Amino acid sequence: MNSVEIISRKRDGLALSEEQIAWMVDGTVRNAVPDYQISAWLMAIVLKGMNDAEILAMTRSMIASGRTLDLSFIPGIKVDKHSTGGVGDKVSLILAPLVACAGVPVPMMAGRGLGHTGGTLDKLESIPGFRTRLCETEFVRQISKIGCAIIGQTDDIVPADKKLYALRDVTGTVSSIPLICASIMSKKKAEGADALALDVKFGKGAFLPSREKTAELARTLVALGNGLGIRTEAVLTHMDQPLGLAAGNWLEVREAVEALRGGGPPDLMEVTLALGGMMLRMAGKAATNQAGIEMLHPFLSSGKAYDRFLALVRMQGGDIGVIENPETYTRQIVPHAVASPVTGYVAGLDAMEAGLVCVLTGAGRMKQDEAVDPGAGIVFRKKTGDAVRKGETIADLYTNRGEKHMLSDRLLRAYRFSDQPCMKPVLIDGTVQA
Amino acid sequence: MNSVEIISRKRDGLALSEEQIAWMVDGTVRNAVPDYQISAWLMAIVLKGMNDAEILAMTRSMIASGRTLDLSFIPGIKVDKHSTGGVGDKVSLILAPLVACAGVPVPMMAGRGLGHTGGTLDKLESIPGFRTRLCETEFVRQISKIGCAIIGQTDDIVPADKKLYALRDVTGTVSSIPLICASIMSKKKAEGADALALDVKFGKGAFLPSREKTAELARTLVALGNGLGIRTEAVLTHMDQPLGLAAGNWLEVREAVEALRGGGPPDLMEVTLALGGMMLRMAGKAATNQAGIEMLHPFLSSGKAYDRFLALVRMQGGDIGVIENPETYTRQIVPHAVASPVTGYVAGLDAMEAGLVCVLTGAGRMKQDEAVDPGAGIVFRKKTGDAVRKGETIADLYTNRGEKHMLSDRLLRAYRFSDQPCMKPVLIDGTVQA
Repeated sequence: MNSVEIISRKRDGLALSEEQIAWMVDGTVRNAVPDYQISAWLMAIVLKGMNDAEILAMTRSMIASGRTLDLSFIPGIKVDKHSTGGVGDKVSLILAPLVACAGVPVPMMAGRGLGHTGGTLDKLESIPGFRTRLCETEFVRQISKIGCAIIGQTDDIVPADKKLYALRDVTGTVSSIPLICASIMSKKKAEGADALALDVKFGKGAFLPSREKTAELARTLVALGNGLGIRTEAVLTHMDQPLGLAAGNWLEVREAVEALRGGGPPDLMEVTLALGGMMLRMAGKAATNQAGIEMLHPFLSSGKAYDRFLALVRMQGGDIGVIENPETYTRQIVPHAVASPVTGYVAGLDAMEAGLVCVLTGAGRMKQDEAVDPGAGIVFRKKTGDAVRKGETIADLYTNRGEKHMLSDRLLRAYRFSDQPCMKPVLIDGTVQA
Repeated sequence: MNSVEIISRKRDGLALSEEQIAWMVDGTVRNAVPDYQISAWLMAIVLKGMNDAEILAMTRSMIASGRTLDLSFIPGIKVDKHSTGGVGDKVSLILAPLVACAGVPVPMMAGRGLGHTGGTLDKLESIPGFRTRLCETEFVRQISKIGCAIIGQTDDIVPADKKLYALRDVTGTVSSIPLICASIMSKKKAEGADALALDVKFGKGAFLPSREKTAELARTLVALGNGLGIRTEAVLTHMDQPLGLAAGNWLEVREAVEALRGGGPPDLMEVTLALGGMMLRMAGKAATNQAGIEMLHPFLSSGKAYDRFLALVRMQGGDIGVIENPETYTRQIVPHAVASPVTGYVAGLDAMEAGLVCVLTGAGRMKQDEAVDPGAGIVFRKKTGDAVRKGETIADLYTNRGEKHMLSDRLLRAYRFSDQPCMKPVLIDGTVQA
């Protein structure tokens, strides 16, 4: 086997064999193939693509680079959920305890925020004491006991992905559907779930703006998941404006708590329940997605979902005092109101711009390993379709940084206004099955 | 400036600015941009190309990485020649002294053989004592005195090319017209010639088999040369079978000597004179290429060109005794005859295959820095169009290695035979001017 030959084949648009792909992935991890060869190969993949068989081989090689969790002694069909990322997306926080209430074990390994998108781990860590690093035994024990756990990826899961991602990040080779799919699904497979509901987002605040590319991403992820033996389905959702009202770590936890108590904003609940219904059907608990959704409603109104979230926070070391009495939260920030410059209607709220302003409040990071400010963020009081009066507060900025007026001006530029009434946008575009 | 942004622009098929290209080239030489970023960038260039302005900027940045020779105090228009490489191509050995006879200074910096193609330096070094490493002062003094010198590239000429080529060689990014043109022309510009005649070859034994791609290569080289202020023209020549009869270092020197004494094979002389005529016209010594060719003929018949070659060998430390009395050459090898398996005609002689057999005799190298056997090689007694009788010698193998029968069998596979008479192939396809 010869790395230059493998790189050249891909450069020429030819498909690679399982052995050739394994050679490169394994070589990356063992430092047997130098970084400059891997990066040239990655660029050739970005520009020439990979077919489904190659993506499957790539993913399998990546999985083989590390450990695979064995969740088989937890009874039932274990269902995970993954989102391709957006602004204000706190769905996982609600979904894990909610679906667990229906008797479906949810082993969730989540990620951190980067760029304009937030991350579930950062959100949970805004709860004082919350531990996102559990060992495998703790993870399994917690799922057995309360049906759900949300942790960070352990170090021995898919080390190839860490190595490859670090290289992709500095070589302009991030935006590739085959590489993205292999990265996502290698981790999901190694984490041991039986089924997976994907929230694949498109629009201004999504990883891919185009519906067409996003549908291809969803199709590829679903095919790959099923190829790996994970029952995988996807919901395609719009991410043109932030989901729900809050963006920022603690602000989103608070909104998730309200949602778990039955008081979530409609758009957030629509996406959460669509995914929850799908998860219940895939777990064999409901005949249809709609039947699944109907099973979930009572857990929200009865307080059961909220109780399950409290149990999750408690078991992972978090202070449930601040969940029950948010006013005791010590990282509270006094909000800075952003006023509407006009009387009329909100015609649009650019999720990408809003997400970037959120980073600037201190809530996010532009580089991996940067710290985030748990209390910072934005609450959007008005979103697309809402009527506004001039001078009325349309958003509250929570920031410990000095540049409040600059942030306020920039956030206003994320809004578009109209003097004509505007429609609330459609959220769910469709579903993708194998 | 940001390397990832520059890589990503090229990945997306956008043109880069002079500053962006200089950032990457300069970063390579100073090790300020890591190899894995350079190789991803190179792959993006291979797959997305560069426009003429980008290629010019790339070449200028590469030239700026090292020294530029000043030949201005040698009077007259200095004309160099460069070939894109082939099998049996000893044209430079004949051309430098021949053109110098007409009063045109020829400062030639040549290369080594790699893969199936030979290199002028290896050929000259088969002459005992011959020095291809002269300092700049010796180089200039020799050209002033006898009108020509053939040396290797000095270390301080375009260090960026050495770095980039080493990386391209191991990352599948060699075959790119923009990168090839920048590599060739940066060196030619730094070497200080005023005009350049290019022999751009296509066919089985050439770097690029396709005529179309080769024409694009020639057009790009000519545009780039003129953009750099070097008057540049190209001859497009076929390289389907070896040029002349000999392939291998000393064997080619001997054939070049015969040619300089007026006894060269017709195909070799056709290419040599086409380039020579062009060089004389570009130097202002002849009104047309044909007039230039007619000026050169007498130097071959009178022995003047041969005398000039002897002067070149002597001045560069070579033993002219072996040139004058080849039978005294101490590295002589007894040839192994390859017999025709049929009676009929040679329908084809695959230059690539023949070149690879030549490497296997010991005459060439597959990796840089491998040693070559100066006496090894092949003399083709029959070429395309020649009649052959069964059992007649069609080639002589010169090798110190044991596998003579294997080599003989493999060389036979490079030949195609027919029972019908076959045409001698056309050699010169056309010329390219700015």
